[in-house]
Amino acid sequence: MSGELGLVTRPLGSVDREAVQDALAACGAFSPEEIGVALELFDAGLAGDYVLFGVERGGLLRGYVCLGKASLTAASWYLYWMCVHPAAQRLGVGQALQHRAEAYVRSRGGERIVLETSGRPDYGRTRRFYEKAGYLPVGRIPDFYRPGDDCLIYSKIVNRSEQDRPEASC
Amino acid sequence: MSGELGLVTRPLGSVDREAVQDALAACGAFSPEEIGVALELFDAGLAGDYVLFGVERGGLLRGYVCLGKASLTAASWYLYWMCVHPAAQRLGVGQALQHRAEAYVRSRGGERIVLETSGRPDYGRTRRFYEKAGYLPVGRIPDFYRPGDDCLIYSKIVNRSEQDRPEASC
Repeated sequence: MSGELGLVTRPLGSVDREAVQDALAACGAFSPEEIGVALELFDAGLAGDYVLFGVERGGLLRGYVCLGKASLTAASWYLYWMCVHPAAQRLGVGQALQHRAEAYVRSRGGERIVLETSGRPDYGRTRRFYEKAGYLPVGRIPDFYRPGDDCLIYSKIVNRSEQDRPEASC
Repeated sequence: MSGELGLVTRPLGSVDREAVQDALAACGAFSPEEIGVALELFDAGLAGDYVLFGVERGGLLRGYVCLGKASLTAASWYLYWMCVHPAAQRLGVGQALQHRAEAYVRSRGGERIVLETSGRPDYGRTRRFYEKAGYLPVGRIPDFYRPGDDCLIYSKIVNRSEQDRPEASC
């Protein structure tokens, strides 16, 4: 799938592990422990437990997303991890990942995507990205990650295709 | 650990699997799919991924709880599952499980327990139990489980021992 911005979204394979690790380390938002958990999810995704999509630009992997069905729900999915390489910020990589993730969830009969992120000030840009993408805040667990670092929970309804949306042209 | 009500709390082992399955089926709150997931968690708990405690009364297992540390957090734990056999409701089994779970979390340096439950009307008694136990609502994901079945998220601070609490005598 090739977009107007020279971005190509595609499923990920084991060959992408090093580029994923590089992006996680380079983006500066994640601790070594967090990178370890992200790579565990990546490996579990390759094994079939989760769904992985990446975005390439100029032949380089510039971001990826990891998602999966929420067990015991009829049509809810979790977005577990998303990362955009700092060398490709503000180029639409995040939006391309979101569009691919949402299209996939819809194709599987999913109706919403839920995600958790940090309430820390340095996550402000991340939160604004999700809010602009249509995620609504549905919860806040004070001090969840550590003192002063709340867990913010967001949810987005995705079960109508872009074409069905009256506001699609906005 | 033996309480005043003839309740004994203890860790669970593989010998308890049948009694756990019986309690899950008998309590009537869980679908076959939910019982399957609960038993998967039980098995993973036996393998060391989670912590399991049960309550016995008169030599019979009458309830159990499954909890685990929340990854990437300093001191947050999830209460994944709790079930009290209908033949032992209103006898303090739920409270005994909560006390044991909280004492364990504190002993591991944990500061809070987070749990998710259903917003359905037939879960009203469950929600009141948690609210009475000191859990505060921190989120609601509309229609998460299925249409009309919200996910409610609760959190409780547990990092002060009962003895430390000024309100302990209340």
